[in-house]
Amino acid sequence: MAGEFELIGRHFNWPAPQGYLGVGDDCALLPVATGHRLAVTTDLLVEGCHFFPDVDPETLGHKALAVNVSDLGAMGARPIGCVLGLSLPRADDAWLAAFARGFRALADAVNCPLVGGDTTRSPSGVIISVTAMGEVPVGSALKRSAARPGDDLWVTGVLGGAHVALELLQGRHPQYDDRLDALQPCLERPIPPVAFGAALAGHAHAAIDISDGLLQDLGHILKASACGADIDFGLLPVHPALEGLPPELVQSAVLNGGDVYQLCFTAAPDMRETITDLAGQYGVSASRVGRIRAGTGIHVGNSLLPLGADSYAGFDHFG
Amino acid sequence: MAGEFELIGRHFNWPAPQGYLGVGDDCALLPVATGHRLAVTTDLLVEGCHFFPDVDPETLGHKALAVNVSDLGAMGARPIGCVLGLSLPRADDAWLAAFARGFRALADAVNCPLVGGDTTRSPSGVIISVTAMGEVPVGSALKRSAARPGDDLWVTGVLGGAHVALELLQGRHPQYDDRLDALQPCLERPIPPVAFGAALAGHAHAAIDISDGLLQDLGHILKASACGADIDFGLLPVHPALEGLPPELVQSAVLNGGDVYQLCFTAAPDMRETITDLAGQYGVSASRVGRIRAGTGIHVGNSLLPLGADSYAGFDHFG
Repeated sequence: MAGEFELIGRHFNWPAPQGYLGVGDDCALLPVATGHRLAVTTDLLVEGCHFFPDVDPETLGHKALAVNVSDLGAMGARPIGCVLGLSLPRADDAWLAAFARGFRALADAVNCPLVGGDTTRSPSGVIISVTAMGEVPVGSALKRSAARPGDDLWVTGVLGGAHVALELLQGRHPQYDDRLDALQPCLERPIPPVAFGAALAGHAHAAIDISDGLLQDLGHILKASACGADIDFGLLPVHPALEGLPPELVQSAVLNGGDVYQLCFTAAPDMRETITDLAGQYGVSASRVGRIRAGTGIHVGNSLLPLGADSYAGFDHFG
Repeated sequence: MAGEFELIGRHFNWPAPQGYLGVGDDCALLPVATGHRLAVTTDLLVEGCHFFPDVDPETLGHKALAVNVSDLGAMGARPIGCVLGLSLPRADDAWLAAFARGFRALADAVNCPLVGGDTTRSPSGVIISVTAMGEVPVGSALKRSAARPGDDLWVTGVLGGAHVALELLQGRHPQYDDRLDALQPCLERPIPPVAFGAALAGHAHAAIDISDGLLQDLGHILKASACGADIDFGLLPVHPALEGLPPELVQSAVLNGGDVYQLCFTAAPDMRETITDLAGQYGVSASRVGRIRAGTGIHVGNSLLPLGADSYAGFDHFG
């Protein structure tokens, strides 16, 4: 089998950037800038747990990297490279080519070169491990614990798209299936605002990606920072294709919908102009949606509907 | 299940060293010394492919890290940390405690702190991904391509132990089962000479770990460096518990036995005293066993038996 799986590796044997040593030795070598910390995040994705056997391989390749580089951006780190472990039941050339294409397109888009990996046979389903590495100036990382009362609360991009796309794909609201074309890319090809996240280092305080839903992920920041927050629902950036959907669906998608890979971050009010300028520079929309305060909990004002226990479903382990 | 698997994570939530940010944020943060490259290696270990379901979990924890830190040492890199992805069919507390104990004992022994990870449910067997990171001075990495004709060829530790231990555990030579106590640790608890490998950076030329057997792994160096090598079999460090075993078993174990996690490296002859001094300083035995020459192939002199095609079994994809 070794030969077959060496062939698999060739789908990922992309040339290493200058100053790097890529695939082919005991380790890859990467440059880390002086005065920076190395930021590292890892995810293990397992067929039957994180994705189904019939998932589109190009989408899978994209998302396997997206979940990791999103964490780099949320730390304020500029990507320097990633490694990929891939275990497959068989060497299916078309599947591999599509997976590699999806992975590489995002790697190129966010400047996170693949520098090494490990490819083996799996006795059951597909297994993917990705470890992404970045660099962040010492003392500038956007830690969850760094929010302060008085900070503005910001969100990038638009919210709710991935959640509604998933519901439509599950056949939940067939009368709105005409929205699927506009929403499906939010679910399947999210582009995390990684370079913008890195640019926020030193300007913003705390950040997190909205992979588990806005309320739950903001809850992680508040818990780590020992603060509370007020959100103005009317300021939240709602995906335009959600217009006209039932208010309960929109509200739930925006507040609790996960898989967003946008950033929720906090910054001092005197940073508003800097942040708006950076957002323009990096082609990211950044919306100021509330503020951090002393105390605990999240108060959502101007919501579409009264907030029941339901709206805080993603918020359990904060309380 | 999330709650259960968060509990699993607690088995690995060890305090981060000073200057680090460990588990609990979007990324871990690690220091990398100025003037150094980041060295990275990753392995994906899958039940039913790399190990059996009944493997001792403490041994598995040890070896999962050993295969990675061994690659750091073979690159001349000092470990700075590792991340662990773990996917399990169920949360078995005793199994996890033993796995964590084995992993941590080696992490402590080689100064490679666990700084982050990802723990999930697996629909089938145990899956382990480890990514280890180290630092090596710019220009000093022990690349496979760096061997030069005239270099001495060195080997650390003693050879053959893991191979014979595996054969004994498989019931192949019951008349020698009295050797198992002495040999089993070579197979199950190898301690890679990582600090010594890091100390060789800047002094030695090429290095590789002997995970696939001496001839095959030396073959990787020779191919990358476009050289040949002469080995004096009589100079090879044979595990003392192999004394009195049949010559064909000893010869095969020493030349082709894998899973060794010792280093094979090359260095200029004027480095002999430095290397011997470093070996003493790090408590490692280093044996000079031959030399690198122009040309191709490996010539083994003074072998116990004539070298048949068999002895080069591990050497296939070099030729």
